[in-house]
Amino acid sequence: MSKREPEDFRSSLTDIVGSENLVGAEKHEEYSKDMGDFEGIPTAVVKPRSEQDIIKLVEVANRDHLPIVTWGAGSSLTGAAVLAGSLVLDMSSLNKILKIDPVNWFVQVEPGVVLEDLNNELERHGFYFPPDPASSFMCTVGGAIAEGSGGMRCVKYGTMKDWVMALRVVLANGQVVNLGEPLPKNRAGYDLTHLMVGSEGTLGIIVQAWLKIIPLPKVEVKMMQVSFAELDSTQQAIQEIRKARITPRMLEFLGRETVEAINGATDLDLPEAEAILLIEVEEDGAGAFEQTLEICRSSGASDIRIPKDEEEAERIYSARGMAYLALKPLASGMHVEDVVVPIDRLAEYLQLVKSTGKRYGLKIPMVGHAGDGNVHPNILFDKDDPESVKAADKAFEEICRYAIRVGGSVTGEHGVGVQKMIFLREQLLAHDGKEALRLM
Amino acid sequence: MSKREPEDFRSSLTDIVGSENLVGAEKHEEYSKDMGDFEGIPTAVVKPRSEQDIIKLVEVANRDHLPIVTWGAGSSLTGAAVLAGSLVLDMSSLNKILKIDPVNWFVQVEPGVVLEDLNNELERHGFYFPPDPASSFMCTVGGAIAEGSGGMRCVKYGTMKDWVMALRVVLANGQVVNLGEPLPKNRAGYDLTHLMVGSEGTLGIIVQAWLKIIPLPKVEVKMMQVSFAELDSTQQAIQEIRKARITPRMLEFLGRETVEAINGATDLDLPEAEAILLIEVEEDGAGAFEQTLEICRSSGASDIRIPKDEEEAERIYSARGMAYLALKPLASGMHVEDVVVPIDRLAEYLQLVKSTGKRYGLKIPMVGHAGDGNVHPNILFDKDDPESVKAADKAFEEICRYAIRVGGSVTGEHGVGVQKMIFLREQLLAHDGKEALRLM
Repeated sequence: MSKREPEDFRSSLTDIVGSENLVGAEKHEEYSKDMGDFEGIPTAVVKPRSEQDIIKLVEVANRDHLPIVTWGAGSSLTGAAVLAGSLVLDMSSLNKILKIDPVNWFVQVEPGVVLEDLNNELERHGFYFPPDPASSFMCTVGGAIAEGSGGMRCVKYGTMKDWVMALRVVLANGQVVNLGEPLPKNRAGYDLTHLMVGSEGTLGIIVQAWLKIIPLPKVEVKMMQVSFAELDSTQQAIQEIRKARITPRMLEFLGRETVEAINGATDLDLPEAEAILLIEVEEDGAGAFEQTLEICRSSGASDIRIPKDEEEAERIYSARGMAYLALKPLASGMHVEDVVVPIDRLAEYLQLVKSTGKRYGLKIPMVGHAGDGNVHPNILFDKDDPESVKAADKAFEEICRYAIRVGGSVTGEHGVGVQKMIFLREQLLAHDGKEALRLM
Repeated sequence: MSKREPEDFRSSLTDIVGSENLVGAEKHEEYSKDMGDFEGIPTAVVKPRSEQDIIKLVEVANRDHLPIVTWGAGSSLTGAAVLAGSLVLDMSSLNKILKIDPVNWFVQVEPGVVLEDLNNELERHGFYFPPDPASSFMCTVGGAIAEGSGGMRCVKYGTMKDWVMALRVVLANGQVVNLGEPLPKNRAGYDLTHLMVGSEGTLGIIVQAWLKIIPLPKVEVKMMQVSFAELDSTQQAIQEIRKARITPRMLEFLGRETVEAINGATDLDLPEAEAILLIEVEEDGAGAFEQTLEICRSSGASDIRIPKDEEEAERIYSARGMAYLALKPLASGMHVEDVVVPIDRLAEYLQLVKSTGKRYGLKIPMVGHAGDGNVHPNILFDKDDPESVKAADKAFEEICRYAIRVGGSVTGEHGVGVQKMIFLREQLLAHDGKEALRLM
C-alpha cells in the first residue's frame, strides 16, 4: 500500500461508495477464503453501486498501487477471488437483469446476478441460459464469465465462452469499453470479448454482459441413472454413445466414494456401485433415449433406473450439483482437480486416479462431466498432517502431468487461479504453446 | 522490397519451395483480385508444401520487409486476400484432412482443405461441419477461420468462432505456436484461439486447425419457400418465429431483384414476389414445422411451397448459395455489404435499403441471413461512370451508418478487410469501443 495513512485511504473509499458500502474490518474474513480454501486477508472491501463507483475505485487503487480483486460469490476453487492486501470489490449490489429480449434472444445483465436467479427469471419467458456450474445457486454471472465456467449441460451446450455476446468492462487504466456487440453475428475487429472470458479478473472488471439465451426444450427430456460394477464399463458406454453420434444433454460420472458421500448427505438412495452415470437425453423423435439405454445395457450396466417423474429427476440433478459440498466435510483438506482428457482416454484416466489414490494412501472421490472428458478428482487429505499434505500435492501433480502427457488440459472449467499456475506453464510448454505463454 | 536484386529474391524462394512451387509472373494476375474486386499485384507467389516452408518464407519476408498475404481461394469480398507488392502464400497444397475423430468429435485439417470437400468426407462418417459460407464449394478452412465466416446454417449453429477448438499458427516472428487444445473444454490460460479467428491474416498464418464436428441430423429436415408481397410481412414472420421460440436450421431472405437474378441464372422457377423466405426446420417432434407454416400464413404470405423431396430442397439451397454469382454479371461493379442489425429492426432496415437505392438511382438486390439480422445489400453500379461510383459509395456509407446507429455491426461474416476499415472505426467509437480500437 501507499505511504498514505490507512485513515486517509478509508476516507477515499467512503467518499466513493458511501460509508454503508465500505465493509467493516470485522467482516474481512468473509472475503479472505474461497471455496477451494485459498486464503488472503484483503486490505479493504467495498460494495460498488455503479460503474462510476468502479471507475473511481480503480483510480484510487492505481494511485495507491493496490491490486483489485473482484468478488462475485467467492465460489472459486482455484484462488481466483482472494489475494492478501488487495482491495476487494464485492459486486453483489450490481445484480440487476437489465433486459430480456425475446426477439433478439439475449439478456443484458449486471455482473452480480446469481446464475440461478437469472434462469428462474428467464423461465418465465420460456428461455434459459445453459451453462450450469454446480455452484449456480450462488455463483454470479460476472464470476462465471471471468472463470469461463462450465457445468453439467456443457456436453451439449458448451461453456460460458459459447454464450457471451458482448461485455462492458472497466480496464486497469480506468477506461470503460464495450467489447463485442449484442448481435448473433459480428465480425467488427479482433474478438476481444473472448479474450476477456476466462481471463480470471486479470484484464478488467466486467460491469455488464450480454448473454445469448435459448428456448427451454419443447420436447421431453428424459433421465437415466445407470450403475456399473467396473470403471472400464462406464468408459465403454460413453465411447459407444459418442460413436453412435448421440448428443446427451447431460452425461455425468459419479465414482463410488462420491455416491456414498451423496447418500450420506441427502435423502437420495443412490445404488451402491463402482460408478454411476447420470444421463439426460432430449427425446427428439429419433429414438436417442432408447438407443442410449441399449448401449448402457450392452456395455455391462448392473442397474438402470429411470426417475418416475420430473420432480425425481430434478432431485437427482440437484444432488449431483451438491457433490462438492457432500465431499468437503470428509476431510480437513481437499484439492479439487479439474483435468480434461480426450474422451477415448477416460478409462485409462479413471484407473490412473484410482491407482494414484492407492499408492499415496489417499481417498480421491471422482465426480464430473464424463461426456466432456472432464471428471474431477477430489483429493482428500489431512491438512494438519504434513505427510498427508505432501502426498496430496504429489497426487495432484501426477494427475495434472498425466493429463498433459495424453494431450489433455489441467483445467476444463475451474480456471488456473493460484492453484495451477505451474501446470499451466507445463501444459503450454508441452503442447507447443511456448509462444502463447510468452504472449500471455 | 529490399535492396536485393529481384533475381536474388526469386532464388531464395526457389531454394525454399522448389522451382515448381514458385508461381510464374504470368500467373500473378490470378492472385491480384479477390471476389469483391479488390486489387493488388503481388511481388511473388509461392505454394508452400509444409509448415517448415512457411517458417522459412516468413524469415525471407521479414528480411526483405515484404508483407505476406495468405491466399486460400481468393473468395474474400473485402480485400482481405490481396495486397500490392506482397509475397502471396497460396495454401492449396496444404489440403490434407489429417484426422477425423468419431469419439472426440473433431477433425484435424490443414488450412487449404475446401469446406465442401471436408463436409463430403465427414458425411461418410455420419458427421458434418455446420458453418456454410455461400462460397463453400471453393473456400478453404484457413480462409474461413481467418475471416470468421458465417453462412446459411449459422442461425442455428453459429459462425466459425463457435467451431474452432485449436489452431497451429506461424507467427510474424517465425515461431510456431499451438493455441487452444482439441478438447471439448479447456480453460488453460487466455483464449488466444478466438483472437486468431477473424483476425484476417493479420496475426499469423494458420497451418493446422482442430474443428468441432457434430452428427448429421437424425430427424427429418424440412424446407419451406414462402413468398411475400410486402417487405414488412417478412419481418413480421421472422419476429413471430423468434417470439414462438422456434430455432430454424436456416432462415434466408431473397429480395425481388435477387429472385429475378437467380431465375435468370438457373433453371429454378422461384415465384415472383417482393421477397421470399427460405426456411428449414428440423422436425424434432414438437411440431416446429407446422407452427412455422402457420406463422408464415398469418403474417401474410402470398404463396408457400414445400419442396417435394430432398433433391428439390437441395437444388433450392444450392441456388440460394449461388445468388452472389447470379447478381455479379448484372453490373460492372458491385459493393457487397454485410451489415447486421438487431432482428427487431429488420423491417426498418429493409425499407432503408430500398429507399436508399431509389434515392441514388441504384439497384440494391438483397439476399442473406434474415434469421441473424444479416441481410446483404448488393449495391450495383457502373464502374466506368464516376457518378455511379460516387452514388454507390454514398449508398454504402449510408447503410453502414444506419447499422451503426441502430446498434448493429458493419460486418457479420465477411470481415473488415480494406473495404470497411473506416466504418470499423466509426462503429467502435459509436459503441463505446474507443479503448478496444486502441487495443487493436
